[in-house]
Amino acid sequence: MEKIQKVIEKIEPIDQEIMEKTQKRLDFLTKPRGSLGRLEELAKIVVGIKKEESPDLKNKVIFTLAGDHGIAKEGVSVFPQEVTSQMVYNFLQGGAGINVLARHIGARVVVVDMGVACDLKPHPGLIIRKIDYGTKNIVKGPAMTREEAIRSINEGIEIVEDELTRGIDIIGTGDMGIGNTTASSAILAVITRTSAEEVTGRGTGIDDVKLKRKIDVIDKSLKSNRPDPRDPIDILSKVGGFEIGGLVGIMLAGASHNIPVVIDGFISGAAALLATELEPKVKNYLIPSHCSAEAGHKQMLSFLGLTPLLDLDLRLGEGTGAALGINIVEASIKILTQMATFHDAGVSEGL
Amino acid sequence: MEKIQKVIEKIEPIDQEIMEKTQKRLDFLTKPRGSLGRLEELAKIVVGIKKEESPDLKNKVIFTLAGDHGIAKEGVSVFPQEVTSQMVYNFLQGGAGINVLARHIGARVVVVDMGVACDLKPHPGLIIRKIDYGTKNIVKGPAMTREEAIRSINEGIEIVEDELTRGIDIIGTGDMGIGNTTASSAILAVITRTSAEEVTGRGTGIDDVKLKRKIDVIDKSLKSNRPDPRDPIDILSKVGGFEIGGLVGIMLAGASHNIPVVIDGFISGAAALLATELEPKVKNYLIPSHCSAEAGHKQMLSFLGLTPLLDLDLRLGEGTGAALGINIVEASIKILTQMATFHDAGVSEGL
Repeated sequence: MEKIQKVIEKIEPIDQEIMEKTQKRLDFLTKPRGSLGRLEELAKIVVGIKKEESPDLKNKVIFTLAGDHGIAKEGVSVFPQEVTSQMVYNFLQGGAGINVLARHIGARVVVVDMGVACDLKPHPGLIIRKIDYGTKNIVKGPAMTREEAIRSINEGIEIVEDELTRGIDIIGTGDMGIGNTTASSAILAVITRTSAEEVTGRGTGIDDVKLKRKIDVIDKSLKSNRPDPRDPIDILSKVGGFEIGGLVGIMLAGASHNIPVVIDGFISGAAALLATELEPKVKNYLIPSHCSAEAGHKQMLSFLGLTPLLDLDLRLGEGTGAALGINIVEASIKILTQMATFHDAGVSEGL
Repeated sequence: MEKIQKVIEKIEPIDQEIMEKTQKRLDFLTKPRGSLGRLEELAKIVVGIKKEESPDLKNKVIFTLAGDHGIAKEGVSVFPQEVTSQMVYNFLQGGAGINVLARHIGARVVVVDMGVACDLKPHPGLIIRKIDYGTKNIVKGPAMTREEAIRSINEGIEIVEDELTRGIDIIGTGDMGIGNTTASSAILAVITRTSAEEVTGRGTGIDDVKLKRKIDVIDKSLKSNRPDPRDPIDILSKVGGFEIGGLVGIMLAGASHNIPVVIDGFISGAAALLATELEPKVKNYLIPSHCSAEAGHKQMLSFLGLTPLLDLDLRLGEGTGAALGINIVEASIKILTQMATFHDAGVSEGL
C-alpha cells in the first residue's frame, strides 16, 4: 500500500481560481454567455486540473487493459474466454473498435496484459504487466489475494508513469476481459449496498437464462466472499479483476500528475468507484464519457455524481466511449483557445 | 413553387435493402452484436441515404446562413441587430465557435448572407443570396411576401447545388440572426398548435422581463398574421426568416441529392419542421445532432420524431452542434469500414 499511499498524497485539489479566470475568459468570446454549455464547463475543468490557462491536448492516450476472469467458466458471457487474448491481438493489429475510434480522434492506444489467461506472443505494442493467468472463480473463493490486488493497482500507476516520457495530456480508460461485467456488477453491488439483481445487465448480450445465472453467480460470490464495503482493496481482491485494479492505478496516477482522466463505461466505472473510495479527491479528475447501455451503469454514474457527455447506447468497452468523450473535451479546449473575443472581432457585447 | 416541387419529386425513399445488408456486415465485426448502439444505427442510415456500401465522408460542409429579423427592434435579444453582420465577418475571419468546431472535425463552412440588414463587404468566402435587408417586424405584419418565402427556399436549394461541384458528402446546417429564436418559436407554435408561452425560451439569454415581452410579441404576431398551420410557405412568410427559408432549401436539396443532413439546434429545427411539412420523406435524411438548452427544442425534436445524438446544453447555433454531430456520424462510418471482422482477426464468434 506504500506506493498507492504516496500517489494519493500527491493528488492536489483542482485549481478553483484559474477556473474562475477561465469562465471570465469564456465570457469575452464571441457568443452569448454560457451558450456553449457543457463545452465551457469541460474547458474549465481541464484548465483546473492541468493548472494551465491554455492547455494543449496533443497527446491523447487510451489505456486498454486486458485481464481474464475465472468466473467466465460459469457461462456468464456469449463469448468463450479465449476471446480476451484474441481481442488483444486485434488491438495490436489495429482492427478493433477502439483502434478505429482512437485513429478518428488522433489518440494512441496503449495495450496492456494485466492478467490474460495465456502467454501472449510478444509484440512491440504490448505491455506485459501480468499478475496471473486470469483471476480465480469468485463463486468458489476470492478473485485474487490482497497482495495481488495491491500489485494490480501499482502496475496501473507504473504504466502511466512509464508512458509519461512519451507525453500524456489526457487519458482515456478502456478494458477487455470476458467476464468483467460480472466482476463490475459485483463491485457496484458491494459499494452501493444493493442486490445483484438490481445492478446486473446483459454484458455482451446474454439471454434471460444466462442473465439469471449471472445474477446467481454474483449473489453467491458476494455471500461466500463477504467483501468489506468500506475497504476497496478487499472488494477488488474478493470480486474484482486484474484489469480493474490496473484501471484504479491509472486513475490514481492520472490524478496525481494533474492529467484529466476520461472514463469509459461500466468496467471503467467500477474502477472509478474503487479509486474514489480509496481517495474521494480523485473524482475531480474524472470526466465521464458516456452512459452505457449496460444495466447498472446509470446507477453507477449517479452514485459517483458524474453526468455523462454521451448517451449512444454503447456497450463495447475497450475505451470506445472514452475516445468519443476525449474528442468532445478537445473541442472544448479549442473553443477556449481559438475563438475570437468580442473586442478582437469587433462584435458588440450583449447587455 | 415549381423549383421546390421538382426538388421534392427527386427525393427517393432511403434504401432499406442496403441497410439490412449493412447490419449483417456490422454483425461480422469484432464486437458483440449491437454493442456500438447508435453508431451502428447511424452507419446504416448514412449507407441507406447514400446508397453506397462504404461511403466516405471526406467533404463535410456546414452551411451557416445569416439573416436579420424586423422583430429585433422589439428587444427580444440581449444583442443589438448589428451583431448579425458583425458575426458574419467573424465567420469569414475564422474566429467564431462554428469555425473552431468545423476545423476540429475537418469540415468547411459556407457562409451565406440570406438577408442581413446591411450591405456586407465583399469577401471571397461570402455568398450573397440576399432576399431583403432583414424581414419586416412580425408584430406589425408578415415577415415577408409569399414570393420572398419561396425565393428564400429556392436560394437554399441553389446554394447546395452550386457547392456540389466542390463535393459534399454530408451537410451540417447552421444559422445566425438576432431575433431568430423568436421566429422559430412562432413557427413551432403554429405547427404544433401550442401557445407561445409553451415554446418560447431565452434565446441569447434574456431575463424574465424580456422573456415576457418575447412571448407577447409572438402571441401578437400569430394573432395578427394568422399563419395557416397546413401551409408551410404561409408560415414561413408570416413569421419566418430568410435564413430559415434558406435552411429549408438546403434540407430539401440535400435529401434530393442523397446527402445526409445533420441539423443543428432550435433554428435548424424550425426549418426542419417546415421542410418535413412540405415533404415528409425529407425526415429520413435528417440526423438531429443535439438537444439545445433552448426551451421548446425538446418539444420540436419529439414532434419531428428525432432523437438527438448529444445533449450538451448548447444554445449558440451557427451549426456548432451540427459540427459535433457530424463528427459522431463520421466515427460511425469508420467503424463500418475500418473494423476487422471475426474471420480476419481470428476472433471466436459469440454463441
